Amino acid sequence: MAAAAILPELATQVLIPVAAAVGIAFAVVQWVLVSKVRLTPERRADGGAAKSGPSDYLIEEEEGLNDHNVVVKCAEIQNAISEGATSFLFTEYKYVGLFMGIFAILIFLFLGSVEGFSTKSQPCHYSKGKTCKPALANAIFSTIAFVLGAVTSLVSGFLGMKIATYANARTTLEARKGVGKAFITAFRSGAVMGFLLAASGLLVLYIAINLFGIYYGDDWEGLFEAITGYGLGGSSMALFGRVGGGIYTKAADVGADLVGKVERNIPEDDPRNPAVIADNVGDNVGDIAGMGSDLFGSYAESSCAALVVASISSFGINHEFTPMVYPLLVSSVGIIACLVTTLFATDFFEIKAVSEIEPALKKQLIISTVVMTIGIALISWLGLPYTFTIFNFGEQKTVQSWQLFLCVAVGLWAGLVIGFVTEYYTSNAYSPVQDVADSCRTGAATNVIFGLALGYKSVIIPIFAIAFSIFLSFSLAAMYGVAVAALGMLSTIATGLAIDAYGPISDNAGGIAEMAGMSHRIRERTDALDSAGNTTAAIGKGFAIGSAALVSLALFGAFVSRAAISTVDVLTPKVFIGLIVGAMLPYWFSAMTMKSVGSAALKMVEEVRRQFNTIPGLMEGTTKPDYATCVKISTDASIKEMIPPGALVMLTPLIVGILFGVETLSGVLAGALVSGVQIAISASNTGGAWDNAKKYIEAGASEHARTLGPKGSDPHKAAVIGDTIGDPLKDTSGPSLNILIKLMAVESLVFAPFFAAHGGILFKWL
Amino acid sequence: MAAAAILPELATQVLIPVAAAVGIAFAVVQWVLVSKVRLTPERRADGGAAKSGPSDYLIEEEEGLNDHNVVVKCAEIQNAISEGATSFLFTEYKYVGLFMGIFAILIFLFLGSVEGFSTKSQPCHYSKGKTCKPALANAIFSTIAFVLGAVTSLVSGFLGMKIATYANARTTLEARKGVGKAFITAFRSGAVMGFLLAASGLLVLYIAINLFGIYYGDDWEGLFEAITGYGLGGSSMALFGRVGGGIYTKAADVGADLVGKVERNIPEDDPRNPAVIADNVGDNVGDIAGMGSDLFGSYAESSCAALVVASISSFGINHEFTPMVYPLLVSSVGIIACLVTTLFATDFFEIKAVSEIEPALKKQLIISTVVMTIGIALISWLGLPYTFTIFNFGEQKTVQSWQLFLCVAVGLWAGLVIGFVTEYYTSNAYSPVQDVADSCRTGAATNVIFGLALGYKSVIIPIFAIAFSIFLSFSLAAMYGVAVAALGMLSTIATGLAIDAYGPISDNAGGIAEMAGMSHRIRERTDALDSAGNTTAAIGKGFAIGSAALVSLALFGAFVSRAAISTVDVLTPKVFIGLIVGAMLPYWFSAMTMKSVGSAALKMVEEVRRQFNTIPGLMEGTTKPDYATCVKISTDASIKEMIPPGALVMLTPLIVGILFGVETLSGVLAGALVSGVQIAISASNTGGAWDNAKKYIEAGASEHARTLGPKGSDPHKAAVIGDTIGDPLKDTSGPSLNILIKLMAVESLVFAPFFAAHGGILFKWL
Repeated sequence: MAAAAILPELATQVLIPVAAAVGIAFAVVQWVLVSKVRLTPERRADGGAAKSGPSDYLIEEEEGLNDHNVVVKCAEIQNAISEGATSFLFTEYKYVGLFMGIFAILIFLFLGSVEGFSTKSQPCHYSKGKTCKPALANAIFSTIAFVLGAVTSLVSGFLGMKIATYANARTTLEARKGVGKAFITAFRSGAVMGFLLAASGLLVLYIAINLFGIYYGDDWEGLFEAITGYGLGGSSMALFGRVGGGIYTKAADVGADLVGKVERNIPEDDPRNPAVIADNVGDNVGDIAGMGSDLFGSYAESSCAALVVASISSFGINHEFTPMVYPLLVSSVGIIACLVTTLFATDFFEIKAVSEIEPALKKQLIISTVVMTIGIALISWLGLPYTFTIFNFGEQKTVQSWQLFLCVAVGLWAGLVIGFVTEYYTSNAYSPVQDVADSCRTGAATNVIFGLALGYKSVIIPIFAIAFSIFLSFSLAAMYGVAVAALGMLSTIATGLAIDAYGPISDNAGGIAEMAGMSHRIRERTDALDSAGNTTAAIGKGFAIGSAALVSLALFGAFVSRAAISTVDVLTPKVFIGLIVGAMLPYWFSAMTMKSVGSAALKMVEEVRRQFNTIPGLMEGTTKPDYATCVKISTDASIKEMIPPGALVMLTPLIVGILFGVETLSGVLAGALVSGVQIAISASNTGGAWDNAKKYIEAGASEHARTLGPKGSDPHKAAVIGDTIGDPLKDTSGPSLNILIKLMAVESLVFAPFFAAHGGILFKWL
Repeated sequence: MAAAAILPELATQVLIPVAAAVGIAFAVVQWVLVSKVRLTPERRADGGAAKSGPSDYLIEEEEGLNDHNVVVKCAEIQNAISEGATSFLFTEYKYVGLFMGIFAILIFLFLGSVEGFSTKSQPCHYSKGKTCKPALANAIFSTIAFVLGAVTSLVSGFLGMKIATYANARTTLEARKGVGKAFITAFRSGAVMGFLLAASGLLVLYIAINLFGIYYGDDWEGLFEAITGYGLGGSSMALFGRVGGGIYTKAADVGADLVGKVERNIPEDDPRNPAVIADNVGDNVGDIAGMGSDLFGSYAESSCAALVVASISSFGINHEFTPMVYPLLVSSVGIIACLVTTLFATDFFEIKAVSEIEPALKKQLIISTVVMTIGIALISWLGLPYTFTIFNFGEQKTVQSWQLFLCVAVGLWAGLVIGFVTEYYTSNAYSPVQDVADSCRTGAATNVIFGLALGYKSVIIPIFAIAFSIFLSFSLAAMYGVAVAALGMLSTIATGLAIDAYGPISDNAGGIAEMAGMSHRIRERTDALDSAGNTTAAIGKGFAIGSAALVSLALFGAFVSRAAISTVDVLTPKVFIGLIVGAMLPYWFSAMTMKSVGSAALKMVEEVRRQFNTIPGLMEGTTKPDYATCVKISTDASIKEMIPPGALVMLTPLIVGILFGVETLSGVLAGALVSGVQIAISASNTGGAWDNAKKYIEAGASEHARTLGPKGSDPHKAAVIGDTIGDPLKDTSGPSLNILIKLMAVESLVFAPFFAAHGGILFKWL
C-alpha cells in the first residue's frame, strides 16, 4: 500500500534549492533591468542639441523645467522618500527587535519548562513506542526557528521597500516615454520583491530543515514541531510591520487629505502640502514592507502547518523525504510557474494604451493560476506516493496523490475567485462602485451607508469560496488538505506580490510626478497606472485574507492535534465562551488600530494646519514646507500606537492558554477566525470601493461620472470623505486582521506543548 | 433525592394568571391616568379670564397662538401620526399575514411528514420505553402555537403603537406644566406597553400550556415541543416588525435630515419639511411596535427554550407541575417586581429638574434588578425541589435549586452591566461620546472613524458579561441554565420596555411641539426628555442583544438535543463550513437592510427636494407640504424591502437543514450567534454615540461643547453626517440582528424533528 514517490530524495534535495536560486537570480535580473533607467541627468557635450534624438517619444517638460532639472528633482524626492522609509523601518525594527528578543526568551523558557528543562529523550507524542528528542531541544530549535523567521520576514519587507523606493522615480521618468515603459518598470520592480520573498522564504526553510535534521535524524515529529517557530517569527514580524506601517501610512494620508484636499483645496501630492513626503513614505512602509512581511508570514505558516501534520502522517515508507517536503516542492514549482507568468507581462506582450493595464494585470492572475495548476498536477504525481496515510485527529486517513492535487488546486482556484470578486466590488468599471459614487449625490452620509453595505455584501462569495475549499480539502485530506490548500492559494505568491507591489510604486510615481511639477500628460499616465493598482491592491488583500483563513484553520487543526484534544465541542461552556470572546477580538483590535489612525491623523492635521498658517509663502509655493516634522509625527505615532494592538494579539493566546486551557483557546481561535475574516474582507473592500468611487468621479470617463464631477463639486467632496474613512479600514485595521487570526493560531501551536502540560490553571484551581 | 417543590400545583395555577391579570390591570390604570390629560381644548364661559388660574405653572404660548389653538394643533398632528402609523401597520400586517399563513402551512406539512402524517402514537424520543403522541399532533399544535405567538406579537406591537401615538401630544401639552409632569406622562405610557406585553405574553403562554395539556396529558416532551411554535411565531412577526419598521423610520429620518437639515438648514421636525410626519410615524412603527415585537419574541423564546429542556429533565417526582413551569413563575414574579419599580418613577418621587431625568431612569434599572433578585430567590426556593436532574446532551445532571437561582440572577445582573456599559459609551455625559464630538473638528471623516472605533470598543465588556453568564449558567445547569439566564435578563422586561418606549414618545412629543409652533422653552423640556431617551434606547437595545445571545444559545442547545447530535465539533468539515458561513450571514443581512434604507432614503430625498422646488411658499411656511406622499414612499419602500432580508433569515435554516443536515446547521447557528452579537452591539452603540455627539454639540452645555458649536458650524455639520450614517445602523440593521440569531435558532428547533428524519439530502446523495 505504501509505495515510494517517483522523485528520489536526491532529486528533491537538488530541485528545491535550485528553484529558490532561480527565483533569486530572476529577481536580480529584474533589478538590473530596472536600474538601467538612469536617475542621473545625462550630460551631453552639445548642451541639449541631442534632444532632437529622443524627442519623438519623450514628452518634453514645458513648464519652465528642462529635462535636466526634472531628473534632478525626481532623484531628490526619491531620496527623501527612501530616507524617510529607511529611517522609519530602522526605528521600528529597533523596538520590534527588543520585543522579539524578549519573546524569543519566553518561547525558550515556556517550551523548556514543559519537561523541566530535562535533557533526557522522551517517549514520542504521536508515534507510540518510539523515543523522541527532549522538550529542551524543541525549546532551543523553536527559538532559533523563530528568530530565523523574524529575520527573513524583516529582510523581505526591507528589501521590498528598498526596491520600491528605488523604482518609483524611475517609473515617473519612464512615463515620459509612454505608459508601456512605465508599466514595465513598475511591474519589474514588483517582481523583484515577489521573487526575492518567495525564494528566500523557501530557501531559509529548506536550509533550516536540513540543518535541524542533522540533530533530529528520523524524529520528524520533533523536527517539524521546532520548525513551526519559523512561521511564528515571520508572522510576529508581520504583525508589527502591518500595524505600525498601516498606522504610519494612514495617519499621513488622512492628515494630508484632510487639510490639503478638503480645507485648502490643493491637489493630492502637491509639494506645498507638508505631509506629502510622509504620505509617500507611508506607502512604502505600509503597503510594501508591511504587506511583504504579511504574505511571507502566511507562506511560512502554511508550510509549517502542512509540515507539522505531515510529520505525524505516514508518507510512503517511514516518512520518505520527498513526500514529507511536498509543501516545499509545491512552492518550488510555484516560483517557476510565476517566472513564466512574469514574462507574459514584461517580454511577450507590450502595453501600448492605458486601457490595456488592468487586463494585463488580470491576465497575470489567470496565467499564473493555469500554469500552476499544471505544475501542481506534475509535482503531485512525481512527489507523492500513489497512496499514503494522513493524520486526522487521532486516526490515520488513507489518501491518494490525486486527492492532494485537488486540495492544492482548489485553494489556488478559490484564490482566483476571491480575486475576481474583489475586483468586481472595488473596480470602478462595474456597477457596485458606480452605485456608491452615485450615492454621493445626496452627500457623505449616503456614500458611507452605501459603502459599508457594499463591503458587507462583498463578503458573501469569498466566504462561500473559502468554505468550499475547506470542505473539499478537509474531507479529502483532513488538516493536511487544508494546509496545502492554503499553500495552493499562496503558490503564486511571487506573481501576487509583483502585482500588489506594483500599486504603491505607481502611486509613488504619480506623487513624484506631481511634486516634481511634471506636466499634466505625465500625471495622466501615472494616474492610470495607479488606478489599476488600487484594484490590484484590493485583490492582493483578498488573497492575503483568503489564505489567512485557510492557514489559520490548518494551524488550528495542528494545534488541536498537538494539544491532544480530539474534539472542539461548541456545546461545552469552556469552548463556547472561547468562541464568543474570540469572535470579539477582531473588534477590539480594529477599535485600537482605527482609533490610533484617527488620533495620529489629528496630530498630523494640526501640524499641517500650523505650517500653512505660520509659514509665509507656503500656499503660494515660494517657501518649502517642513516635511521632516510630519515624517516624525507619523513615525512616533505609529511606533507608540502599534504596541497595544500588538500586545493584544501576542498575549491573548498565552493568557487564555495558561489560565483557561486548550479547550477555551480552541474556541478563541475558531471564533477569531470566523469573525475576523468577515471584517477583514469587508473593511478592505469598503475602503477600496470608496477610493475608486472618488477616482471614478475625478476621472469623469463616462456620461454618468461627469454628472457627479468635476473635482470640487459637492458629490466629489462627499466622495473624498468616504475615501478618507476608508483609509484606515483598508490599509490598517482590515489587512492587520489577517495577521491576528494567523498569528494567534501559530502561537498557540508553538506553545501547545506547554499549554497541554501546564495550561488551564484557573479551571484546575476551581 | 427528588423531593417536591414547596409550592403546590394549585397555588402555581393561581399565581401565574393572577400575576398576568395584575399586570394587565396595572397597564389599564396607567392608560386611564394618561388619558386624563385632555386633548380637547377646554371651553370656558368667561372666555379666557380663567387663565389667570393655572398661569402660575403653565407656560403661556406667546407667539400669536392662544391655548385653544395649541391644543387643537397638537391633536391634529397626533391624529396625522396615529393615522399614518395605523395605516402602515395594517399594510404591513396584510403582507406579513400572508407570509405567516404560508409559513404556518409549511410548518404543518414539514412536521406532519416526519412520520408520514400517521395518527399512531410513537415511542418517545427521550423517555425510553414510554409512548408519546404522534408527529402529526406535534405538527398541528406547533402550527397553532405559531399562529398564537404571531398574533400575540402583532397585538403587542400594535397596542404599543396605539398608546404611544395616544401619549405623544399629551406629553407635549404636559410639558407646559413642567418637565416632571411631561416625564410622568411619557413614562406611564411606556409602562402601559411594558406591562401589557409582559402580561399578555405570559397569559397566552399559560393558557396554551393548559389547553394543549388536556390533549398531551403527561407527555411533557410532546407538549413543550409543540409550545416552541409560540416562540417561532413571536419572533417571525418581530423580524418583519423590526426590519419593516426599521426601514420605514430610517428612510424617513435620513431623507428628512438630508434635505431639511443639511441642504435647507431648517430645524429638525420643522413642519415645512414634507417628510416630517413620516419621520414621526416611523418612530412609532419602528422603535415602538418593532421593538415591542422583538422583546416579546425574546421573552417567548427564552421561555420556550427553558420549557423544552425542562420537558426532558426530571423535575421532582415525575415532572411535577410547579417546577416544570418555573420559567413562567419567574416571569410572574418579574411583573410584580416591575410594578413596584414603576411606582418609584411615577408616585414615590417627583422629577423637578431636567437633570433628574436620566438618574430617574437609571434608578429604574437598578431598583428593578435589586427587587427582582429577591423575587428570584423567593420563587426558586418555593417553586423548585431542592435537588433535581436536568438534561445535559444525553446525560442527566444533578442540580440544586440555589444553583438555578444563580443562573437566573447572573443573567439579570449581566443585563444591568450591559446597560451601564451601553450608557457609558452612548451618553454624552462621558468621555467616549465627547471624544467623538471632538473629532468633528477635523470633519466628518474623523467623526466616522472615531464613531466606528467606539462601537467596536463598546463590544468588549458586554461580551465578557455574556460569556461569564454563559459559563456560569452552562456549568451549573447546562442549557436549562442558559435559558433561565436569558429569562433572568428579560424578567424585568416590563420596566425595560417602559424605559425604552419612553424614548420615542418623548421624541415625538418634541416633534409635535416644534410642528405646533410651541415656544422655545417647551421645546427645551421635550429635548431634555428626548436626550435621556436616546441613551435609554441604546440601553434597551443592549438588553435585547444580550438576551438574544443567551436565548439563541439555549435554543441552539435544545435544537442539538432534539436533533440527536451529541457534539458539535468544530473540527469536522460539515460543522466548520457552517460556522464560517453562519458568521457571514449577519453581514449579508446588514448589507441588505442598510442598502434598503439607503435606497428608500434616496427616493425620499428626491420627493422632499421636489416639493421644496415646486410648491410655492413652502419654504416661507405659507403653504403646507404634501405629507401623504412621503408617508407613502416610506410605506411602499419598507414593505418591498423587508422581503429579501426576511426571506434570508427564514429560509436559511430550512435550506441548510434540508440540504446539508443538522451538523452544518449547528455550525451556522453558532457562527451567526457569535458573529451577529458583535455587529449588533457595535452598530447600536456607534449609532447612539453619533446621535448624542450631535446633541452634545447642539446643547452646548459645557465649555468644550461650545467650542464645537453652535448649530450650523462646521463641526456640527460633520456631527450631523455621523448621526445620519448611524440611523440605519442603530435602528435598522443593528437591532434586526438580534432577531436573525434568535429566529434561526428557534426555527431550527421547531423543524428539528423533520431535519433529523429527512435532512442533509446533499450529503446523503454524495
